Amino acid sequence: MIAHRMSNIDSSGIRKVFDLAQKMKSPVNLSIGQPDFDVPGEIKEEAIKAINEGANKYTLTQGIPELRDVLLEYLKKERGVNAESIIITSGVSGALTLALMALVDQGDEVIIPDPAFVIYKHLVNFCGGKSVFVDTYPDFKLTAERIQPHITNKTKLIVINSPANPTGVMSEPLELKDIAELAKRHNLLLISDEIYHDYNYNNEFESIGKYYDKTLVLDGFSKSFAMTGWRLGYAAGPDTIIKEMIKLQQYTFVCAPSFVQHAVLGAWGFDLSKYIADYRKKRDIMYEGLKDKFHIVKPEGAFYFFPQVPWGTDEEFVSTAIKNNLLIIPGSVFSERHTHFRISYAATEETIEKGLKILNSIA
Amino acid sequence: MIAHRMSNIDSSGIRKVFDLAQKMKSPVNLSIGQPDFDVPGEIKEEAIKAINEGANKYTLTQGIPELRDVLLEYLKKERGVNAESIIITSGVSGALTLALMALVDQGDEVIIPDPAFVIYKHLVNFCGGKSVFVDTYPDFKLTAERIQPHITNKTKLIVINSPANPTGVMSEPLELKDIAELAKRHNLLLISDEIYHDYNYNNEFESIGKYYDKTLVLDGFSKSFAMTGWRLGYAAGPDTIIKEMIKLQQYTFVCAPSFVQHAVLGAWGFDLSKYIADYRKKRDIMYEGLKDKFHIVKPEGAFYFFPQVPWGTDEEFVSTAIKNNLLIIPGSVFSERHTHFRISYAATEETIEKGLKILNSIA
Repeated sequence: MIAHRMSNIDSSGIRKVFDLAQKMKSPVNLSIGQPDFDVPGEIKEEAIKAINEGANKYTLTQGIPELRDVLLEYLKKERGVNAESIIITSGVSGALTLALMALVDQGDEVIIPDPAFVIYKHLVNFCGGKSVFVDTYPDFKLTAERIQPHITNKTKLIVINSPANPTGVMSEPLELKDIAELAKRHNLLLISDEIYHDYNYNNEFESIGKYYDKTLVLDGFSKSFAMTGWRLGYAAGPDTIIKEMIKLQQYTFVCAPSFVQHAVLGAWGFDLSKYIADYRKKRDIMYEGLKDKFHIVKPEGAFYFFPQVPWGTDEEFVSTAIKNNLLIIPGSVFSERHTHFRISYAATEETIEKGLKILNSIA
Repeated sequence: MIAHRMSNIDSSGIRKVFDLAQKMKSPVNLSIGQPDFDVPGEIKEEAIKAINEGANKYTLTQGIPELRDVLLEYLKKERGVNAESIIITSGVSGALTLALMALVDQGDEVIIPDPAFVIYKHLVNFCGGKSVFVDTYPDFKLTAERIQPHITNKTKLIVINSPANPTGVMSEPLELKDIAELAKRHNLLLISDEIYHDYNYNNEFESIGKYYDKTLVLDGFSKSFAMTGWRLGYAAGPDTIIKEMIKLQQYTFVCAPSFVQHAVLGAWGFDLSKYIADYRKKRDIMYEGLKDKFHIVKPEGAFYFFPQVPWGTDEEFVSTAIKNNLLIIPGSVFSERHTHFRISYAATEETIEKGLKILNSIA
């Protein structure tokens, strides 16, 4: 019973935005979910070297051992995460696909913050599970207190995403600790999607995996190295889960792109600080531009704001923005509510300024 | 209900071979499922160009339009396949994953030749379907006559693979026509895995898609361009199916590697004939080396032979080969029978000659 669940996947919300976007001639585009810079030259060079040296064949299903070792060591040293095992995947989406398919059975409940990255709920639905949403409005904080009432004897796992898409909000160490303890008490698994970890503007990023061994840490290089098209991510955590994911990867994704694995290994230690400083600046510009007319939470990470719409529903407000040549995304794409919109600052400063002008004019 | 089906996926057979292989110091390796040459220089150049020009971001879920257009046109002109629609995927395995997940429901029967590529049955099992095997021994021909008795009112689709892994056998036009007519009569869908189409030594390759519109043609570039680690394939066929696959890809694979799509587009029309001539020669060397002591079918495509074991079971014979430093794969990895073994000539002529000597010495 998989095929019949295709109808559980509803992509009409985001499709509508895509369709509108395609009709726009040269929109002021503040809807983008990937960095506006290109892959840094040093990393390109490593990829080219790998191609020229013949790293073009299948790798081991779980990824090249050298990269796995480096990543496990890094997780231990930098994040205090003692993962037993790791699998290299085709992006974080690939890791999430394998994890949820290997873990979620019919009727299992998966706790997901609301708002959240769309893929979580669609994959849970496709696996026959039930998405249980934790309302995090108005501050977008996922806390143990907010999670607790949603735990039942069917709860299988909790999804954490800090820094978060679509809000940019980050969890504080104490908040993570509390969630970890809650999970421990109920013997639940945590999936921590840390894809935006490099985009944290106060250097305060922590992984919840530090506080709880039954955490599957998902991360990748798409956002950090601006290589969303290169498809490289990983999952690290309990050996029993990683083993199942490897088994499934063998017959589905087969392996993550070979030379990209070598490129990331070769470029290990690359300094991203100037890119992050640039994004912090963009965050500040956007904050200044939004704060007078919009209810906003100042985000500490990722590259999104999730403001409340000043009037009407999210779709009505976004329609007006689009009529004024500004592309943003209605909040209901990420949420059960129709009250907010997502705006991305993964764009040039010029585009951001233009967008802010339009937004303020229609607020 | 997905996770519990992980136990339906049994990879112990092939894992055992992998484990043995890792213990061998420098085996004569005739187990390889990918070409022994590197990606041709011209294609590497196109990939490097694409990376340098910034083709490093997400592409459209279904792949870049230019490559989709070229492929649809090529399928029409070269194979007579009038596919309504196409999706670019992460290899043929990616295409197969999306197709089976979007098509197969609990209890659906999928007709698969025996022997066949292992992934078919494992994916069908994972999707909750039932693999129904058509015994094609001893000539490994999949024919309408052999398929017919296995069709029931639960039959959903038939998987075709010509040239075939693990036998190298190709279907003749009349055989394909008969299967197409059988499928038409019963309103069944065909999935035609054509990944080895370039490795056909008499220029007689035909796609069954030419004879029947309800065919999903799967193909890719891993084998032709020796880029198994680059993960690029596609599925072309009925628009309703492709649409479902796009929906599912959006939340799983997201997109096929970006610059690989551009590289294949840029290298379009690349002449493979010298590589294929080289493989024809290897096929002939192996045929001459096997024919005296082994029952074999001379293959017309791919790069495998599937000889009968001269004594014992497939596992016993392969164990002896491994003790003699030759790595080959027991037939039961691909089959319900324990009577054959797979030997690949994707290797240097020197390795092939060494392997043949060992094989003949233990026959």
